[in-house]
Amino acid sequence: MTRLARAIDAIATLGGLDAVAMSLAQARLDSLTKPPGSLGRIERIAVTLAGITGDPAPRVRPRCAIVVASDHGVAAQGVSAYPQNVTAEMVRNFLAGGAAVSVLARSAAVDVVVVDAGLASGPIQPLSAGSARLITTAFRGASDDISTGPAMTRDEAVRAIECGMDVAAEAIGAGARLVAVGEMGIGNTTPASAIVAVLLRRDPADVTGRGTGLDTDRLAHKIDVVRAAIAVNQPNPDDAIGVLAALGGRDIAVLVGVTLEAAASRIPLLLDGFITAAAALVACAVCRPLAARLIASHRSAERGHRLVLDALGLEPLLDLELRLGEASGALLALPLIDAACAIRDEMATFESAGVSGAEKGVHA
Amino acid sequence: MTRLARAIDAIATLGGLDAVAMSLAQARLDSLTKPPGSLGRIERIAVTLAGITGDPAPRVRPRCAIVVASDHGVAAQGVSAYPQNVTAEMVRNFLAGGAAVSVLARSAAVDVVVVDAGLASGPIQPLSAGSARLITTAFRGASDDISTGPAMTRDEAVRAIECGMDVAAEAIGAGARLVAVGEMGIGNTTPASAIVAVLLRRDPADVTGRGTGLDTDRLAHKIDVVRAAIAVNQPNPDDAIGVLAALGGRDIAVLVGVTLEAAASRIPLLLDGFITAAAALVACAVCRPLAARLIASHRSAERGHRLVLDALGLEPLLDLELRLGEASGALLALPLIDAACAIRDEMATFESAGVSGAEKGVHA
Repeated sequence: MTRLARAIDAIATLGGLDAVAMSLAQARLDSLTKPPGSLGRIERIAVTLAGITGDPAPRVRPRCAIVVASDHGVAAQGVSAYPQNVTAEMVRNFLAGGAAVSVLARSAAVDVVVVDAGLASGPIQPLSAGSARLITTAFRGASDDISTGPAMTRDEAVRAIECGMDVAAEAIGAGARLVAVGEMGIGNTTPASAIVAVLLRRDPADVTGRGTGLDTDRLAHKIDVVRAAIAVNQPNPDDAIGVLAALGGRDIAVLVGVTLEAAASRIPLLLDGFITAAAALVACAVCRPLAARLIASHRSAERGHRLVLDALGLEPLLDLELRLGEASGALLALPLIDAACAIRDEMATFESAGVSGAEKGVHA
Repeated sequence: MTRLARAIDAIATLGGLDAVAMSLAQARLDSLTKPPGSLGRIERIAVTLAGITGDPAPRVRPRCAIVVASDHGVAAQGVSAYPQNVTAEMVRNFLAGGAAVSVLARSAAVDVVVVDAGLASGPIQPLSAGSARLITTAFRGASDDISTGPAMTRDEAVRAIECGMDVAAEAIGAGARLVAVGEMGIGNTTPASAIVAVLLRRDPADVTGRGTGLDTDRLAHKIDVVRAAIAVNQPNPDDAIGVLAALGGRDIAVLVGVTLEAAASRIPLLLDGFITAAAALVACAVCRPLAARLIASHRSAERGHRLVLDALGLEPLLDLELRLGEASGALLALPLIDAACAIRDEMATFESAGVSGAEKGVHA
């Protein structure tokens, strides 16, 4: 059995969320000095964390953000507002601590792991005193232009997934109790849109958005590029790994692996925006029970994001018109998860505080 | 000129938000290593803070949550799922540090100020080692039952507003750079619904919700009580102070004063749920330019909340089905405001990080 097959098998064996842990978490929440359920989705976060981990009161510290960077041959088709060298420039900015993910990670006490999954300008050199850890991989250069052929071979897609599994396994082995995901790759909303269009069987116009800020003419061109990529590759929508190899970027493939490994390890996985959702969609296509083990941090301004979250049955915590990536939305939502844990652990109970409960029989 | 009239005058003199500070904040955000506007509402928070304070990069620490507690004669009409003694019990829980507001305030580094604006069981005694500061007022006992007559005299309403102004002025004088508001008062969604129905000229059924969790029969009864309160008092919708005196609770009146004082002092005021929104609606009715100086933390599960926020032109940051009060929603949103300030202050610029900008003419 391959590494990938073992992870899929492990997640399938876990099955649904842990009902006993969830009911213990719910009982604890209902004992606290507030009307039952009055903290709404904050309470449901605490119950979901219990279900994912099998622990009624799991900790979510320490935690890390795994930000996967790669370049995309399709960037040559003019699908981004930014030149391709920005991918490498931003990875250096992550390492130096000046990017949005750097700032938000500091605020939320999150370790940042940056994965170099193949950049057009060659491997990034680590900084001696960087604020993020750089993981270099065997992948070199951009993935191929999906508008003229497959992004990568099937074998390379599987190796990229397994690379993501290794990265996540190492982070979890080092103690991470929650993993947030993010990405950086100029042009990567184009492969994400193509994958989502095929897996959700939607017209590309329904799932292709402005990315970092294209105007209307460029958006129309981007939709044409997505159509061309699907037409030239003719991927089989029932073969998600094949779809990923044909249309994916390597960043997305690595994120599929991170997602699978976290789920198999019963570690809560906090999604970011559209690209991480596209990776989750691939992961769930190969292993459906995985979806319940994901937490959607936000719904982005990218138009296909809502459709993917709906398909995965995920309700995002935030809706702030974000469209940056880099795990920024995940890190903005993390304080809500911390708040859920603090409420669960630190509030007084009706009994301990001497507070009267509700009158009988008047609750909805 | 009375204290109240001076505050209204001061807010009117301030007029709209500070356009110069806002454009400086916007220019700073646009210089940072991210596509312009890609952090969506997080960026708009930073711009709004500049507009409120007149400072392009205001700090929001230290900050406090002012939680106003009072009892309501209308609780005798069976409009809450909880007995009236819970108000005092929860105030003691706030002081002991076991309530949701206590836990969330610790997480967000917020000082909690609890105002005893008149409880049925008499004044609360301060704890020697409490986690929140108790402010005792001259008000004693519950406000009167609005279903049979006015909650209080007009003079008492004005004194309660001025009490709130004093509390906020003291907190701001002690250094608070942001004020969050909250409340505790069994039955207080009933006066809030009555005030909102009159000021928004809506049918009570449109703005009366389940509060802490009434079943459908009790909700219908609560709507009848709101109708009775409006019928017996016949308040003039163009006289917001008169509406407040007739239908308000004292907690709401004190919150009107807190809101006015923060706005007059150019301090960002972070609203919580429906009751604080009702107080803001009264404050804006007496001083319309005030609305731009408020930040809506969340949209609650209480049905009238959306209508009030729409009337005030406020877009909430969170929508998490909260219905607790106590400033809990405000404190859950505060990390987003902190994140906006951190992004503004700590991110690298395109120039400092050596990152390429967008290609010309492709942006939406």
